[in-house]
Amino acid sequence: MAASQHAKICKGCWEQLHVPVPLRGVISAPFRAFGIRPSRMNPNTCTICELMFTKVMRARKITIDATIMFADLRGYTTLSQSQSPDAVSGLLDAFYDECAGAIWEHDGLLNKTIGDAVMAVFNFPLRRETHARNAVLAAREIQKNWRARREALVEAHGLTGSELGIGIGIHSGELSFGEFGHAHRDLTAIGTVVNTASRAQSVAEADQILVTKAVFDRAQPDLKDSHSTTFQLKGYDRPIELYAA
Amino acid sequence: MAASQHAKICKGCWEQLHVPVPLRGVISAPFRAFGIRPSRMNPNTCTICELMFTKVMRARKITIDATIMFADLRGYTTLSQSQSPDAVSGLLDAFYDECAGAIWEHDGLLNKTIGDAVMAVFNFPLRRETHARNAVLAAREIQKNWRARREALVEAHGLTGSELGIGIGIHSGELSFGEFGHAHRDLTAIGTVVNTASRAQSVAEADQILVTKAVFDRAQPDLKDSHSTTFQLKGYDRPIELYAA
Repeated sequence: MAASQHAKICKGCWEQLHVPVPLRGVISAPFRAFGIRPSRMNPNTCTICELMFTKVMRARKITIDATIMFADLRGYTTLSQSQSPDAVSGLLDAFYDECAGAIWEHDGLLNKTIGDAVMAVFNFPLRRETHARNAVLAAREIQKNWRARREALVEAHGLTGSELGIGIGIHSGELSFGEFGHAHRDLTAIGTVVNTASRAQSVAEADQILVTKAVFDRAQPDLKDSHSTTFQLKGYDRPIELYAA
Repeated sequence: MAASQHAKICKGCWEQLHVPVPLRGVISAPFRAFGIRPSRMNPNTCTICELMFTKVMRARKITIDATIMFADLRGYTTLSQSQSPDAVSGLLDAFYDECAGAIWEHDGLLNKTIGDAVMAVFNFPLRRETHARNAVLAAREIQKNWRARREALVEAHGLTGSELGIGIGIHSGELSFGEFGHAHRDLTAIGTVVNTASRAQSVAEADQILVTKAVFDRAQPDLKDSHSTTFQLKGYDRPIELYAA
């Protein structure tokens, strides 16, 4: 997505505070001088939105109903063992970019990139009743675009013998979102929902999207043809049903 | 560590560019107006250091010899399944703070917090020949301080039936460090070294530190009494020797 396609005013401030905060163009300059600029986690929102709880809600963290998506580039570990860091980093750029585009298009926040994985939050700061569905649609778009691009990417970067696919896990529910830690401040989501989404991703095959029953129920009718499989996830007492989306 | 104990000028700029960049006090105000402030990843360095490759080296990423440490709070997933997000978030604050203090004391960069885990990089932007040893010492300090605090923490937060310990994995070698992705810019480390450190952490028991042979060799004589065990890590063709530090 080119910068010109991004929102001209902050969607978060407009929707929640009814204040037009310019993000781009000459009029945004005085705002930028005060540190108000497009968020790196979602360029349609601003740095005020990122810290909405501290600046607006006077809290450090909030408990919200939200959806968490983890996407992981499979085969990347093997690839990075056999080829130079520079050769494989272009591939990771492409992976991050595909994820970012799809997440932002569905009003999610690209909260973290961790090695060959990304973590996204849906329903903050942009509130969307359909956050579970938004995450599913973003995941499908990531898979579709990656399948279309991967052969050309592998060839362009002179890589060999790799099967690169993306595994995705999604879960919805109550979680803590905000700044954790006092010394090192960092914006992140915490709770079972986050852990379960991460574990669902870890059991997803390449090219697969696995969602929990909470997501399955909320994202209907988009998942009406989904079937579930039972998994015993690490760190969980009871087996869990995951649906292929 | 209190703010007053942090460096008054940026250690990174001083060591590498011989430029005194004030981080604290009245004299730092004009610098702050230009966005130069203490880094959230290491408060003894500044935001210029975070982006040293773009501002100073005119590259987006660099290949460096470095040490990666992953630390993960065990038992936290189980805890967050049974208790409220707010009750457990105080515990995570304490975990992040202990990690941050130890990492910074040994000149590392707290690069990421991801749910119940943190990832640190040693040898950037502060260059230290002893980066492997620094990481081991930071890990030992985290374990020591956590063992001393955890009972009081569990009690203070009204938590029950949990055994909270930290598992740590460390690996050294060449990796890519910089900004990956074009749309979403984010500072991170990429490469086998990162993946191997993460996998070593995943097999470490609570209260344990597991390091690779590369770290074992470099951190002598601090590891002279360490013994190795063979592990078959997920995603790796060959078994790997890990040393308890």
